[in-house]
Amino acid sequence: MKTGNGMRLFINEVATRDGFQMESRFIPTDDKVALIDRLSALGYAKIEVTSFTSAKAIPALRDGEEVMHRIARRPGVIYTALVPNVRGAERALESRIDEFNIVMSVSETHNLANLRMTQEQSFAQLAGVVALAKQAGVPVNVSLSCVFGCPMEGEVPLAAVQGWIDRFAALEVQGITLCDTTGMAYPTQVQALCENVIAVHPQMDWTAHFHNTRGMGLANTVAAVEASIHRLDMSLGGIGGCPYAPGATGNVATEDVVHMLQCMGYDTGMDLGGLIAAAAELESLVQHELSSQVSRAGHRLTRHAPPADFNDIVARAKERGQKELHP
Amino acid sequence: MKTGNGMRLFINEVATRDGFQMESRFIPTDDKVALIDRLSALGYAKIEVTSFTSAKAIPALRDGEEVMHRIARRPGVIYTALVPNVRGAERALESRIDEFNIVMSVSETHNLANLRMTQEQSFAQLAGVVALAKQAGVPVNVSLSCVFGCPMEGEVPLAAVQGWIDRFAALEVQGITLCDTTGMAYPTQVQALCENVIAVHPQMDWTAHFHNTRGMGLANTVAAVEASIHRLDMSLGGIGGCPYAPGATGNVATEDVVHMLQCMGYDTGMDLGGLIAAAAELESLVQHELSSQVSRAGHRLTRHAPPADFNDIVARAKERGQKELHP
Repeated sequence: MKTGNGMRLFINEVATRDGFQMESRFIPTDDKVALIDRLSALGYAKIEVTSFTSAKAIPALRDGEEVMHRIARRPGVIYTALVPNVRGAERALESRIDEFNIVMSVSETHNLANLRMTQEQSFAQLAGVVALAKQAGVPVNVSLSCVFGCPMEGEVPLAAVQGWIDRFAALEVQGITLCDTTGMAYPTQVQALCENVIAVHPQMDWTAHFHNTRGMGLANTVAAVEASIHRLDMSLGGIGGCPYAPGATGNVATEDVVHMLQCMGYDTGMDLGGLIAAAAELESLVQHELSSQVSRAGHRLTRHAPPADFNDIVARAKERGQKELHP
Repeated sequence: MKTGNGMRLFINEVATRDGFQMESRFIPTDDKVALIDRLSALGYAKIEVTSFTSAKAIPALRDGEEVMHRIARRPGVIYTALVPNVRGAERALESRIDEFNIVMSVSETHNLANLRMTQEQSFAQLAGVVALAKQAGVPVNVSLSCVFGCPMEGEVPLAAVQGWIDRFAALEVQGITLCDTTGMAYPTQVQALCENVIAVHPQMDWTAHFHNTRGMGLANTVAAVEASIHRLDMSLGGIGGCPYAPGATGNVATEDVVHMLQCMGYDTGMDLGGLIAAAAELESLVQHELSSQVSRAGHRLTRHAPPADFNDIVARAKERGQKELHP
């Protein structure tokens, strides 16, 4: 396990899309804008603002245009959004999005269950989105679901993962995100898979996206970084659940991952104190307890006061010491 | 990050001591005995049954003798208990304990706050316990608290950790557990510290004990194993909280750690399905939600059924495909 040695890592926030999408309560537009503006100052490389899906499909994000219009864009931060199809791409372009994030699954069953299309249908649709993006000069990132396993199919063969990567690489997309959609990844698998795909397409901007469904999210993050993945998706407070494991946690929490990486000597560019404060704000927005840990426990070097009777304890211990010397 | 390659690791359960000690509800003696008997069949190397502290200090474990007397001892499993002093050692010997687990802190402030003695007073008292154990031919393990940091003092110098290790090694104890008492450890620190102390005392039986207070418990476990620690403490369901971070999780959860290590190719000797079932039983005993993940989400390859309308989805997708071919 290598120390970070100041290596720069790039942090992407997904709470405002991947997280809010799963919340039962509609987060008011004003609150979304205020939160994104607050997050923009904390050092993120990228913020996934919203999704240009139909309002019927994802009512939680029906205010995508308004949010994009009202946020204060901070230079250096990439404001991205999920773009499912050409109609969504047109809306995204009208909103002057910095990047299209397109999604499909490397598992046919999961793609059908989640997107209601075959993989070939998804790919054809997304190829149209990529063409439009090229015309408009907007970079494209592909988030590939179920790269480390499918909750319905089980293991996904590496060749299938590689096949879809090759096809998107041929479309000349700028980046690919390897998504552990339901928390099936484990550290040695992560390292082997990441090393494999990076070796084939070293020019690609690679991102890893982990869920903490089985507690391995931070260990998987270490594995990905050791395999030379320098971009990481995460979600403030760990919001964004997993539909296949009721009650289980979803996305890895931004404050937990950043805290660990900073301890290990990586340069995340992030303001951890600001993240912890933003998580407290987020908790009041979503109105339920967050699954993140550092938001509750604080930085590892947070000092706690000794017990209230500490001076008495010391005095009694000393007294006993005297008795032992002069019984 | 190395794959396990079948390497044998040894799992110690601490829920019945470290966990129950923190529960507000007294776990009935019958239930303790039944749980330990159930756990004995699951492949553990060691089970920390109870504590021979005064009933006044830890009422939750006031039935230590009775529990030790009533459990069915499975050959090959080491039944250990916390032994704070010579009086406790005598009780432990009467209970025919397999090992004494003695505890002190490498931080003076934490030792005073937790044990109400100076470190020198603790060491003198524990040296008496070790002498008694030697006489009786019972092995001794020392659990050193705050090895990776103290919640009141902050960083603990490596020299202080090494100093206490040297003094206990000189007493010829059999094992030392490096405890991350309040979840301050981080992976690169774990690896460096473990490698350091093992190099000085390679003959010692080393154990690591992590808390998940800041989400790093499993990543730290990987780091410790990579540093050649082959014995690990953990707590079923992750029970056993952290008094310095209200609401935060405590011990790493046995089912989560074992699941990860098995995925990575280590031989833990454990029955994971049995652990998940035992965690469900434990949840009903402690009467609150467990902080463990695998107990809720199951093994990573747990298969989930596709959505109820999956056949319709497929039919509609095919139909659309036909239309696209013959519009």
